[in-house]
Amino acid sequence: MVEGRVVQIGLLGFGTIGSSVYRLIQKERDQILEGTGVDLRVKKVLEIAPSRIPTDAPTGLFTTDFAEIVDDPSIDVVVEVIGGTDAAFDFIDVALRSGKNVVTANKQLLASRGEALFTLAKDERRHLRFEAAVAGAIPIIKVMRESMIAAGLHTVYGIVNGTTNYILTRMHQEEGDYAEILLEAQELGYAEADPTADVGGADAAAKMAILASIAFHSRVTLSNVVYAGIESITLDVVRHAKELGFVVKLVGAARLIEGKVSVRVFPALLPTNHPLASISGSNNAVFLEGTDIGEIMLMGPGAGGVPTATAVVSDIVSVANTKDVGFLQSCSCYRRLGFYAAEEVESAFFIKVSVADEAGVLAQIASIFGAQGVSIANMIQEGRGDEAELVLTTHPTKERQFFAAIEQTKGLACCRTEPMTLRVL
Amino acid sequence: MVEGRVVQIGLLGFGTIGSSVYRLIQKERDQILEGTGVDLRVKKVLEIAPSRIPTDAPTGLFTTDFAEIVDDPSIDVVVEVIGGTDAAFDFIDVALRSGKNVVTANKQLLASRGEALFTLAKDERRHLRFEAAVAGAIPIIKVMRESMIAAGLHTVYGIVNGTTNYILTRMHQEEGDYAEILLEAQELGYAEADPTADVGGADAAAKMAILASIAFHSRVTLSNVVYAGIESITLDVVRHAKELGFVVKLVGAARLIEGKVSVRVFPALLPTNHPLASISGSNNAVFLEGTDIGEIMLMGPGAGGVPTATAVVSDIVSVANTKDVGFLQSCSCYRRLGFYAAEEVESAFFIKVSVADEAGVLAQIASIFGAQGVSIANMIQEGRGDEAELVLTTHPTKERQFFAAIEQTKGLACCRTEPMTLRVL
Repeated sequence: MVEGRVVQIGLLGFGTIGSSVYRLIQKERDQILEGTGVDLRVKKVLEIAPSRIPTDAPTGLFTTDFAEIVDDPSIDVVVEVIGGTDAAFDFIDVALRSGKNVVTANKQLLASRGEALFTLAKDERRHLRFEAAVAGAIPIIKVMRESMIAAGLHTVYGIVNGTTNYILTRMHQEEGDYAEILLEAQELGYAEADPTADVGGADAAAKMAILASIAFHSRVTLSNVVYAGIESITLDVVRHAKELGFVVKLVGAARLIEGKVSVRVFPALLPTNHPLASISGSNNAVFLEGTDIGEIMLMGPGAGGVPTATAVVSDIVSVANTKDVGFLQSCSCYRRLGFYAAEEVESAFFIKVSVADEAGVLAQIASIFGAQGVSIANMIQEGRGDEAELVLTTHPTKERQFFAAIEQTKGLACCRTEPMTLRVL
Repeated sequence: MVEGRVVQIGLLGFGTIGSSVYRLIQKERDQILEGTGVDLRVKKVLEIAPSRIPTDAPTGLFTTDFAEIVDDPSIDVVVEVIGGTDAAFDFIDVALRSGKNVVTANKQLLASRGEALFTLAKDERRHLRFEAAVAGAIPIIKVMRESMIAAGLHTVYGIVNGTTNYILTRMHQEEGDYAEILLEAQELGYAEADPTADVGGADAAAKMAILASIAFHSRVTLSNVVYAGIESITLDVVRHAKELGFVVKLVGAARLIEGKVSVRVFPALLPTNHPLASISGSNNAVFLEGTDIGEIMLMGPGAGGVPTATAVVSDIVSVANTKDVGFLQSCSCYRRLGFYAAEEVESAFFIKVSVADEAGVLAQIASIFGAQGVSIANMIQEGRGDEAELVLTTHPTKERQFFAAIEQTKGLACCRTEPMTLRVL
């Protein structure tokens, strides 16, 4: 057994991730020591809820007093896995000011109040690491910060919410409609009792804000992200998409357009041969495009205590092995880019609308689209009588023009429902 | 513009990768400086071939004398992109002994003579980095060394040869037989004039030796890898596989079995829903499995000057930012594991054999397999008369038992050809 450098850890929170971090360190301690020369020890755990404290916990390991961690000079790294944006902010703020390096898995906090914390970390010359905050076990933060240095990144597509990807995967397999599968997902623990943040897109939006900030070196907060969720996706839409050779996914899209940043989250149709189309179940994936690197994708478990804990542990080791103040210690946002207006972004679309079963319908709609400069890629008229439906896809057009055309179709007598529209990646 | 730490580079070789490294640094220098605080400058380039030296090269940049690089105290990092295993070994050896950090893209060298160089680098307290040696732009070395610290890795599957993946992808799209597509690939520059190392599996074997060494922390050299290539894969086999829902890929498989290492490269059938099945064209991918991390995959360009250069540049920055001797500076092989006997590995198989069109054939073959303990998963008899063929897949069995069964079938009067066998992942 090698002699290692002892790194004492103060762990804030003993929920799913916290307890997994603790157990993973116990289990892999010897391997980590042999492989990295770092001897990880969890010295103190802050946990308020008595129900979470194991009955066989070592004496003195648990505390309800934050001061026991932050005032302990032997503790090198504070791991924040409590979640939320208020107490967690204060804990990290005080820890950094007390000279501790911090590792967190808190995406909401970083996406909403990250700038203040990164600035503080820089001023205090301490690390603030957050690999586990986005896409669980996938080391996307490390890869973007340390390997995409000269990649010329301009696009980041992400499937970064496991709950919605699980629901959409099962809908694609035609195992039920949205509401049914959401209910099952809740029963199986794949969806929260209150699934709003997941199915509404806010969770994915927070993660995309973090990824975009790193990719484009300019701060993006949750409030800069335009997002929508999957609540209105019906089995019928998924089936139509499948017939046309597409898969429906909740996609985060961060792009650098004409020197400005655009970050959005929306349900979209992906061609089945797109690498992101094959990401199934609760997996996550991030697909990067850059002028120098081409296309690169990482996929893996987006959640789960143990996989997420592996990301926390590699952050701790990285902090322990980077004693010198390097670029990883400061915020990567060294410039302030503007935001590209959402309505000017170019997107391809899928449209489904119930129409009157009569001659001339196609011509009327095609003429409205043509007048707005929206070019139609594919058009199918299906069913007869009351069942008559028009399904079409467009070539990429400015969204402003596309939605102007859609507004006009709403006035047509031959359109019997409001058109259902989805972006095509 | 920030003031950065100047890092002077000596570049050995100005071929495809070397010239791309040079141009990428020229193009991205300001971005790299802003993002990382490192100011990269190529001080000298060693290139023997006058035809490779651009006519507009700055005066004094190129040299044919290695001493001008290795004896220049201002040069911090030597980048070796010459290739080959003889001169390159000596260059790296002397550079390390002269106090230079080294970045290389040389897989053959590391897979065959890596141990001596890693040991030297450790003794000299210098870095020897090699991200670009495996899977081009995909940062698999960084991810495995720095993020899979507590992942419990036990399996590494890789599509790590772009040429064979390009050929097999086109065969899967039924665009021609092996020989035709290889010829086209050579004309397009996707395959070498002498394609032996690629199509025969040796290139993939060298890369898998490197990946296995890192994954399992035990040295694997090229001579420890059992490998085969794709020369015998016919369009007919690819079609049969496709009918059964499989894609044929050249797969590297490194596994930890009962504490021993098994590393092999072979053409295999992958179910179309396996993440590696979707890796098309000249792309590479590495799929990792670990008890703690679950399943994780990285995909991207496996070759090409500029993508590979991005990997070289991130290695240089990483070296420049890790002044202190950390675990990344030493060889990651801290233990010596034995090798698992190839014939004891369990694999599932696909078998195709021409048979007599008569009653009892299935029964005879099934009985031989049953006696050897090989369980049949799927069996199809196709065609009539002279065209009669049996196509079957097995459940995983020890390869020793499987091949014993195959030997016995060769003695059967009803088998009119030697059985064609392929592993199923």
